[in-house]
Amino acid sequence: MKTFHITPPDQSIRATLIEKINNLTKPKGSLGILEDLALQIGLIQQTVSPTLQHPQNIIFAGDHGIVAEGVSLSPKEITWQQIYNFLHGGAGVNFLCRQHGFTLKIVDAGVDYDLPYDLGIINMKVRKGTRNYLHEAAMTEAEMELCMERGAEVVRRCREEGSNVLSFGEMGIGNTSSSSMWMTCFTGIPLEQCVGAGSGLDNAGVRHKYEVLKQSLDSYKGDGSPRDIIRYFGGLEMAMAVGAILQAAELNMVILIDGFIMTNCILAASKLYPEVLDYAIFGHCGDESGHKLLLDRIGVKPLLNLGLRLGEGTGAICAYPIIDSAVRMINEMDTFSQASITTYF
Amino acid sequence: MKTFHITPPDQSIRATLIEKINNLTKPKGSLGILEDLALQIGLIQQTVSPTLQHPQNIIFAGDHGIVAEGVSLSPKEITWQQIYNFLHGGAGVNFLCRQHGFTLKIVDAGVDYDLPYDLGIINMKVRKGTRNYLHEAAMTEAEMELCMERGAEVVRRCREEGSNVLSFGEMGIGNTSSSSMWMTCFTGIPLEQCVGAGSGLDNAGVRHKYEVLKQSLDSYKGDGSPRDIIRYFGGLEMAMAVGAILQAAELNMVILIDGFIMTNCILAASKLYPEVLDYAIFGHCGDESGHKLLLDRIGVKPLLNLGLRLGEGTGAICAYPIIDSAVRMINEMDTFSQASITTYF
Repeated sequence: MKTFHITPPDQSIRATLIEKINNLTKPKGSLGILEDLALQIGLIQQTVSPTLQHPQNIIFAGDHGIVAEGVSLSPKEITWQQIYNFLHGGAGVNFLCRQHGFTLKIVDAGVDYDLPYDLGIINMKVRKGTRNYLHEAAMTEAEMELCMERGAEVVRRCREEGSNVLSFGEMGIGNTSSSSMWMTCFTGIPLEQCVGAGSGLDNAGVRHKYEVLKQSLDSYKGDGSPRDIIRYFGGLEMAMAVGAILQAAELNMVILIDGFIMTNCILAASKLYPEVLDYAIFGHCGDESGHKLLLDRIGVKPLLNLGLRLGEGTGAICAYPIIDSAVRMINEMDTFSQASITTYF
Repeated sequence: MKTFHITPPDQSIRATLIEKINNLTKPKGSLGILEDLALQIGLIQQTVSPTLQHPQNIIFAGDHGIVAEGVSLSPKEITWQQIYNFLHGGAGVNFLCRQHGFTLKIVDAGVDYDLPYDLGIINMKVRKGTRNYLHEAAMTEAEMELCMERGAEVVRRCREEGSNVLSFGEMGIGNTSSSSMWMTCFTGIPLEQCVGAGSGLDNAGVRHKYEVLKQSLDSYKGDGSPRDIIRYFGGLEMAMAVGAILQAAELNMVILIDGFIMTNCILAASKLYPEVLDYAIFGHCGDESGHKLLLDRIGVKPLLNLGLRLGEGTGAICAYPIIDSAVRMINEMDTFSQASITTYF
């Protein structure tokens, strides 16, 4: 079983960080969330002069057996077609990566299609899509462990390339369904409140999706442990993201969390290692029903609320300049003594 | 009297813009507010390929006679001291300008101090601070007109320098008080709901500020016209911002609005020329009591809510990358036909 060594950041530097932030030339607290972020990143990096190096956005892609039950408006082939679009540079995530200086890594965790790996896709395929959890577990234990190990491997590669900040996104038709299952199992929030429109279902579609998921939940006979819930209802790309997130925390990296699906992935990760949350910054609260509920349950406030529901890491990357601002604030602003200004409280 | 020629953007291009946005490779509407912004900027610029050129942040600075009544926690000299800090590059607004490629223009509208204009401050001083509106009008009509004319002149200069997007900020101890007065006069919202903590008053301080402002309101004997309210309770920097905002709209520029004070400035501008709102993007909703109320009244949703309360344009500049994302989206994303992808609705 893949294990991680995640410790909460050492708090002994906290007072020094707060003192530095409070002495910048502004009324105390007047840069709001930027001040909170500077503190968090300072703690993660154990320095009063944090940096953000070589940001990368990792998209884990996979297909879902449950799509056979009609839970998604989009056909399954969108998963691989959209990956081609990523390679082509014309997708939503591409312009955002270019804008904010992110490298984009596309990881095939379990796409049900023969992708051309010579074009830059990282081949971590565990199997061609999950099994249909209406009838059986989506993954075997071995498959889930392999997903987590391979997710961790991708992150170690990023660390070796010099990255200390990563955002995580996904592509996988059907993965809001898996996310709803994880959410209800991990939080106890009734399934009905965890199910939403995904890529654009109408009311009847959402109702059908709920019925399929309710039946799946009712027929689940596992032991209810985090690992069992992850493997039974998860997507391959989601289990891989869990391993990646845990590895990033172990390596003291700043973790940017995208939308509903990635929020469920860090929720799952936190069920294995609660300390992982100290390393996470939540980028965006989308419109997917249940996402706000879930963020409230975790007790976090995302940086943005722009009505995005595209996935791919777009919500996390959009939030990156705010994180960058926080780091620039603590490094570039003068203190009251440097500026010869009246300390005004 | 300074007049402006502001027309609402021609709507004939709207359908073409919407069609272009809907054909980008994403589920329709899935880029949320980015799609709304792309439409708005396309309309302002009358093109399906909008651009953002040479962004500048203009800070109008001025002092307020009402500060003599103890309405602000910060002493008056903070206004000029903070301007020195801007010049020095170590203030909050500076690192944000560097981060997002903004030129910073600092305009002395009415600072009660002899500033050194050889250091790059633009001298538009109308007088050394306003009169105390507890006892008399803050400005004469001629002073207000001069403010508006000079604000417009600064913006015309920016346009000549190649800018098509401007953000507006302010520096002026006491200007949340003037803003509260404008807000209550222009919206009819009771003064009590328009008054907040400014740069950090405690409850007793807010109460005192309210009492001073209530007395000022009660002794107002003007004709209640927008121009009279602007001159009676306004700051010189605020009247100058009104002129600047109106000039920017006349020149079809994208206008980024910062916090509580700038929101009141565009409110005042819209009382003279309602069409100005078509050109405005609201960057940030701060913590100042009344700001959210005012944004709701205008009927707009700001892009960010980061708990900033620094002014200087910081909230608007922080929102700039989102606007940039919107423009990149419409220019850089592939359409479904380019991407050979199944149109998924």
